Amino acid sequence: MKRTSDGLLFAVDLLGTFVFAVEGALIAVAGNLDFLGVLVLSFVTASGGGIIRDLLIGAVPPTSIRDRRYALAAFAGAVLVIFLYQFVRQVPTSLIIGLDAAGLGLFAVAGTAKALDYEIDPFIAVLLGTITGVGGGTVRDILLARIPAVLQVDVYAVAALAGAAVMVLGIKAGMPRSTMMVSGGIVCFLLRIVSVWQHWNLPKVLVSQVS
Amino acid sequence: MKRTSDGLLFAVDLLGTFVFAVEGALIAVAGNLDFLGVLVLSFVTASGGGIIRDLLIGAVPPTSIRDRRYALAAFAGAVLVIFLYQFVRQVPTSLIIGLDAAGLGLFAVAGTAKALDYEIDPFIAVLLGTITGVGGGTVRDILLARIPAVLQVDVYAVAALAGAAVMVLGIKAGMPRSTMMVSGGIVCFLLRIVSVWQHWNLPKVLVSQVS
Amino acid sequence: MKRTSDGLLFAVDLLGTFVFAVEGALIAVAGNLDFLGVLVLSFVTASGGGIIRDLLIGAVPPTSIRDRRYALAAFAGAVLVIFLYQFVRQVPTSLIIGLDAAGLGLFAVAGTAKALDYEIDPFIAVLLGTITGVGGGTVRDILLARIPAVLQVDVYAVAALAGAAVMVLGIKAGMPRSTMMVSGGIVCFLLRIVSVWQHWNLPKVLVSQVS
Repeated sequence: MKRTSDGLLFAVDLLGTFVFAVEGALIAVAGNLDFLGVLVLSFVTASGGGIIRDLLIGAVPPTSIRDRRYALAAFAGAVLVIFLYQFVRQVPTSLIIGLDAAGLGLFAVAGTAKALDYEIDPFIAVLLGTITGVGGGTVRDILLARIPAVLQVDVYAVAALAGAAVMVLGIKAGMPRSTMMVSGGIVCFLLRIVSVWQHWNLPKVLVSQVS
Repeated sequence: MKRTSDGLLFAVDLLGTFVFAVEGALIAVAGNLDFLGVLVLSFVTASGGGIIRDLLIGAVPPTSIRDRRYALAAFAGAVLVIFLYQFVRQVPTSLIIGLDAAGLGLFAVAGTAKALDYEIDPFIAVLLGTITGVGGGTVRDILLARIPAVLQVDVYAVAALAGAAVMVLGIKAGMPRSTMMVSGGIVCFLLRIVSVWQHWNLPKVLVSQVS
Repeated sequence: MKRTSDGLLFAVDLLGTFVFAVEGALIAVAGNLDFLGVLVLSFVTASGGGIIRDLLIGAVPPTSIRDRRYALAAFAGAVLVIFLYQFVRQVPTSLIIGLDAAGLGLFAVAGTAKALDYEIDPFIAVLLGTITGVGGGTVRDILLARIPAVLQVDVYAVAALAGAAVMVLGIKAGMPRSTMMVSGGIVCFLLRIVSVWQHWNLPKVLVSQVS
């Protein structure tokens, strides 16, 4: 079982953790949680997806439990929001969406790669990559007693799913893994950005129409 | 650590997965989730109980992560509901309750058997069999930000518990394991059906009465 | 990997399990759950934190799955509340808070010790000790579709965090482990008691003030 431990990937992974943590902290503040709640939601949003993936593939302790730098990156995001809330909240939404889309793409392909490293079936690896991307936000919403946004609105998990699927299909077609990781991440990022820009939503089963 | 890998049991297990997935999809549609949400709730309802059991007994990756056919059975249930919603919703409630009771009995005894295979204490194995039966629906309700129905109403988890307990007690009394799996499944099925038919509910502690 | 298996610690651990179970049962009754729901919430409140810790450090099956006495202690708490509700509810709140604070301190230091036994980084071990103390109540609140109280109000998780941190810092400074476990437990207990007595709360980020 080799590990995805490229130095650049690690640095980018920490950055993604930080971005997700800032988002979690902003939501915690908006949800009227106390300082501890802000720290918890930052960590959960940033690390929850990776922890679920690691538990499911049997990579225990999960990366963010084994390596303290993930928790430190998450808490740095929380502390930034706590002490500089009036500045952070003025960051343009478009920048946050862009950073979040980049983090989503990164987590999705990194999660898929790790699942493949653990010899998980490629189809399931795509699902696990998606969970890596959206799992943290899902647990955060559960802690806030809300239906996870990812189940209801937006092309969000689908972007992660598409990026992970492109990556796996390309690898199966014989393309180099690193090329497909970058390609999958870009697909996820672009699909997410375009869907926000074009107000795309997934269709629903029309209950009233058919009755 | 031998595994419960009988061919017939596997086929029936996939069928139970499909039935639970259809139920999860119907609830997702009623809850106004989008297509992705329907897929997620189908998978969670069908596989959540088994995944929790496998994590707790240390059987990682869990069966439904290791073997893609479980996810495919769950997604088949979701796709059926998405594309044939107007037909599926006209299936008589009694048939759905019957299939669900059969799936509950199957999951409860199969989960108990797997826990025993992993040398879990028989008393705890009964609890894990029950979790296998009701865990998926519980996680589904958590994702919908609802108090899990299983905690509030109906003889549902108790039917699973009774079936698992009958199975373990029979094995302890020297009966053949396969006989007791069938017997436990039937006890669960009948108890569930009769309780629906007779409108049985579990008692509650009467808070007002004693004050 | 040695285990924390001191006889006295085990007895105290079972007692803490029982106390947390009684609290979970009282909340279940107040939440109008049926008998099964009371049993489930007792077990979850008492064992949830330890189970999450054990899953994260890779100690599977978790202690309370491996050893039936934890489940029996939890169910004893539930049965006590079910059959003697009118007496249990008349127990003075101050006694319940005191017992709960003692259980919190015990779980926090025992959880930290177990994480250290599994060679988890000390900083993360403090977080895992805190999770051991507050995780059960958090899962219980999730099952009740409530925002976990621990994220919103009170000096509760912070008391567990402080106790765990004192323990780890003392051990790092060369103090005997048993001394620091007792010291950490006392710090947690006192901080919790004093914060209830003085109505301390954690600060929040003032959203309105800065807008």
